[in-house]
Amino acid sequence: MDECIFCRIVKGEMPSFTIYEDETVLAFEDINPVSAGHTLIVPKQHAQDLWEISDDDLAAIHLASKKIIHAIREALEPTGVACVQLNGPGVNQVVRHYHLHLIPRMAGTPELPVSSWEIEPGDMASIRETADRIAAAIR
Amino acid sequence: MDECIFCRIVKGEMPSFTIYEDETVLAFEDINPVSAGHTLIVPKQHAQDLWEISDDDLAAIHLASKKIIHAIREALEPTGVACVQLNGPGVNQVVRHYHLHLIPRMAGTPELPVSSWEIEPGDMASIRETADRIAAAIR
Repeated sequence: MDECIFCRIVKGEMPSFTIYEDETVLAFEDINPVSAGHTLIVPKQHAQDLWEISDDDLAAIHLASKKIIHAIREALEPTGVACVQLNGPGVNQVVRHYHLHLIPRMAGTPELPVSSWEIEPGDMASIRETADRIAAAIR
Repeated sequence: MDECIFCRIVKGEMPSFTIYEDETVLAFEDINPVSAGHTLIVPKQHAQDLWEISDDDLAAIHLASKKIIHAIREALEPTGVACVQLNGPGVNQVVRHYHLHLIPRMAGTPELPVSSWEIEPGDMASIRETADRIAAAIR
């Protein structure tokens, strides 16, 4: 846990550009920003990912994200904001402490690397079969 | 509102591969999937984006996402799952009804188009200045 960079930021052992804090969450700027205003929101209590985070912390993160996206709109007037939250090494979750990215895009800047993909119709039989398998595993 | 494709799915006027439903949210498979198991979670009550969704619906969406990511792990054994939620035309929000994407990646499949970007250190003075502007706009 002491090795976790976000836990160290939460404890004040590493500096950060904080934009919001309450008893449950901390929001600060990504120092390797995809765009100006690229913000991270983390739970103060360490949890690796969406599988592990508590319900209370999860709700607090997203309620904070709503406050922050309003502030980003007021401060930066973006043409859009992408919210991205990665879980697991297969999707490049670099820091294994749950974090929600808010990535604004400003007018006249390049497309974000996270908000564009080919729209290709899938195979309906295969989608149905996968849907049935996921639905059967809901607890 | 009647033109909104997700409102039509919620009303049962258009078919969908539903995987989860409660009084507040509906989850169904994306028919143009980035990967097998690509799932969308929407509030039943129309709201355009994160700026507009109610706090209760927002919390419900994300608590449902936790149930669903557990089901996806059990059913599909992905190496990771990307959660993506786009707000505004500048980030290609195609359907203007709030929706959270859960996009699993399976072993041996290509990198997702939403979970990879260049890690480049930003300019610290500029990050600090932007952080101050966002922080000042928090309500």
